[in-house]
Amino acid sequence: MSPTLSEYPGPALPLADLRDAWLVLSKSDRADGFRILKRSDAEEFFLGLSAGDMAELLHALPEKERRVWVRLLAPDDAADLLQSAPGEDRDKLLSCLDDPTRKEVTALMAYEEDEAGGLMNPRFARVRPDMRVDEAVSYLRLQARENLETIYYVYVADEQQHLLGVVSFRELFIAKPDTHVRDVMATDLITVGEEVHQEQVGHLFSDAGLMAIPVVDAEGRIKGIVTVDDIVDVVQEEATEDAQKFGGMEALEEPYLQIALTRMIKKRGGWLAALFLGEMLTASAMAFFEDEIARAVVLALFVPLIISSGGNSGSQASTLVIRAMALGEVRLRDWWRVVRREVAVGLALGSMLGLIGFVRIVAWQAVSPIYGPHYLRVAETVLISLVGVVMFGTIAGSVLPFVLRKFGFDPASASAPFVATLVDVTGLVIYFTVGSVMLRGTLL
Amino acid sequence: MSPTLSEYPGPALPLADLRDAWLVLSKSDRADGFRILKRSDAEEFFLGLSAGDMAELLHALPEKERRVWVRLLAPDDAADLLQSAPGEDRDKLLSCLDDPTRKEVTALMAYEEDEAGGLMNPRFARVRPDMRVDEAVSYLRLQARENLETIYYVYVADEQQHLLGVVSFRELFIAKPDTHVRDVMATDLITVGEEVHQEQVGHLFSDAGLMAIPVVDAEGRIKGIVTVDDIVDVVQEEATEDAQKFGGMEALEEPYLQIALTRMIKKRGGWLAALFLGEMLTASAMAFFEDEIARAVVLALFVPLIISSGGNSGSQASTLVIRAMALGEVRLRDWWRVVRREVAVGLALGSMLGLIGFVRIVAWQAVSPIYGPHYLRVAETVLISLVGVVMFGTIAGSVLPFVLRKFGFDPASASAPFVATLVDVTGLVIYFTVGSVMLRGTLL
Repeated sequence: MSPTLSEYPGPALPLADLRDAWLVLSKSDRADGFRILKRSDAEEFFLGLSAGDMAELLHALPEKERRVWVRLLAPDDAADLLQSAPGEDRDKLLSCLDDPTRKEVTALMAYEEDEAGGLMNPRFARVRPDMRVDEAVSYLRLQARENLETIYYVYVADEQQHLLGVVSFRELFIAKPDTHVRDVMATDLITVGEEVHQEQVGHLFSDAGLMAIPVVDAEGRIKGIVTVDDIVDVVQEEATEDAQKFGGMEALEEPYLQIALTRMIKKRGGWLAALFLGEMLTASAMAFFEDEIARAVVLALFVPLIISSGGNSGSQASTLVIRAMALGEVRLRDWWRVVRREVAVGLALGSMLGLIGFVRIVAWQAVSPIYGPHYLRVAETVLISLVGVVMFGTIAGSVLPFVLRKFGFDPASASAPFVATLVDVTGLVIYFTVGSVMLRGTLL
Repeated sequence: MSPTLSEYPGPALPLADLRDAWLVLSKSDRADGFRILKRSDAEEFFLGLSAGDMAELLHALPEKERRVWVRLLAPDDAADLLQSAPGEDRDKLLSCLDDPTRKEVTALMAYEEDEAGGLMNPRFARVRPDMRVDEAVSYLRLQARENLETIYYVYVADEQQHLLGVVSFRELFIAKPDTHVRDVMATDLITVGEEVHQEQVGHLFSDAGLMAIPVVDAEGRIKGIVTVDDIVDVVQEEATEDAQKFGGMEALEEPYLQIALTRMIKKRGGWLAALFLGEMLTASAMAFFEDEIARAVVLALFVPLIISSGGNSGSQASTLVIRAMALGEVRLRDWWRVVRREVAVGLALGSMLGLIGFVRIVAWQAVSPIYGPHYLRVAETVLISLVGVVMFGTIAGSVLPFVLRKFGFDPASASAPFVATLVDVTGLVIYFTVGSVMLRGTLL
């Protein structure tokens, strides 16, 4: 079924063909395809792979071919690769590196993958403050040979590596050659601690619009730099995790078409079962009102309509709050302002839906009188319940992310299904309570 | 209630204070706060604002103070500012710019904000292929004075501006001075067309790991460059839009705490009303089975449990597909592979929930016999229905994003509430149909 690349006839496989086929190729076919690329295409392709794909590809290549590819990587990317590689490959891959790089990579692997230290590159352009500008430029020309990832910013540090300032290469390049670095550098620096979470690092880039941010330790010594090109992937990754949690499951952490079915079922099944157990309370709530339902079956007809409206409005509210938190627009202390807004929004939206529901029942009754003689009472019950349920939905949906964050959980777990479950149970109680009051003496 | 900054006593307001207070300040207080910042802080702060905030701030400043701030902006950022500014301010702001910049900005404003042309900066480092490397470096030193946004990549173009190659500044810097640009440049270029959507541009950056990508017209002439720092914001923006659509509303396009309540209610109310109208079909479906409910009230008890399980599993499936589409992992032609996976997942998850439900009813009955003598039949109905409803949920949730994209809509509109509504109606029909068959001769 899958294309066999080992039979490929041409002199070199076009890069685009391998890209297109990649997802459907087996591991060994991937390696075969990779090996018949033109050398420059292969480099481009290899550097564009995710760390996981890289690790798999290298695993499928003969050991003696690995070295040349591993050595293409900057230390931060090599560390990512090692973290994704199967245990038995790690030492072999590490031994492909030259001594200084191996030391750098080993140091980087002490950091968590999702903190600033795990994202940073320990190779950056650095100069001393008392260098002359022309000396600095010549010195950088030497440093640049050693495979620096970027010379966009040049960092100024003293002998103990304390970060003193920064100067963009462009500024250095156009400054008078005989001035000193100290006189052209900027000292109001944006820096980030080694253990800051990558989501925060993303905000810093987004707010400051920089190409790179230096990572410093507690004593203000520069350890490396995070470049913005790594942040694009971080931002995508965080958005994907949040979206999947919000959809009511654990984050997959693998592409949808690649993850093994059993692993995906596990990641989805856990939450689904938990929600199902929660939702069982609806059966208990309904059982509690079984007599009312038996006497006024008409009440049961509107159960899905009422509870889904609460779930939908709650899903809107929790989306907005979760996303605003992820962007840093809303913080924990803003909770009261958010709740006030959601009370107002819930009242407006609940009244709107309530009126639509009221009109629908009254109009339908005029056409085909299926709701019985007390239809007006039923319509009023639906109207009042919708106001209450929608307001409860917006309040619950907006408060839940704050509660989760307060207790150290990810606010994105306040998923649409989670909020809907919460609102379903409460919505039933609201609806049947309103119904008992409104229909007492008529239907009940 | 709000702090009044015009009474601020100190010599200069700390930048951090203004940042913290920004969201709760009125427009005129923002301008007051901004004006008492230290000049260097003010520049940093101004450049970090969103285009919308910039436009509001400038509007609140006296006209004669605007020029100095507008002139800080690169042409692409100035164009964004003008697009966000109220109509009456545009000409005034445009007149703050010098002649060449005004021309560049006017050209940029012809592009849509969310396409490559609208993101690009028309100022980039360019050299001719037949220059010597040392000539090119001196020439760049001159060009760099004119406020280029980046000299990270140097683009090689002929006299008609046809893009021939690219060389990183670092490579140029360490190349032998007497070689020619033509000999050190790379010719396998990644470029992007002027009208490519920003989401695609984001994928390109994410896949290729570049710091900048050149924008070319249909004839291959370079028009400008998109830099990766602008892409971080694009990626955040697109993720926010998708998240909000998935939460069941229109994208707000403004920060949650800043959008006017009426505007937010409009953006949420539209979808909520549409979903409500759709969900009304559940009342019709229930009415269709009203006789069955009247005879077997026990059936009604499990309605919320059954339909919510379908909604939850559908929400998982649509999240996964929407996000995989946004990341470019899943394309239209992959639909059949996705559906096959979801059938398998739905069967597994449905069976799991069905068994939990079955055990719950049988166990509960043993403790307190509220489900009557035919409880086993009821439990079987719930089991079979859950398998059907969950499978329908995963299939509907995964197919809907494909259908929406096929017909030119945004797949992210296959929101959790939308899928839930679809599944609620169908779920009821499945449940009551299974119930009629299973309970015929006993309860019905």
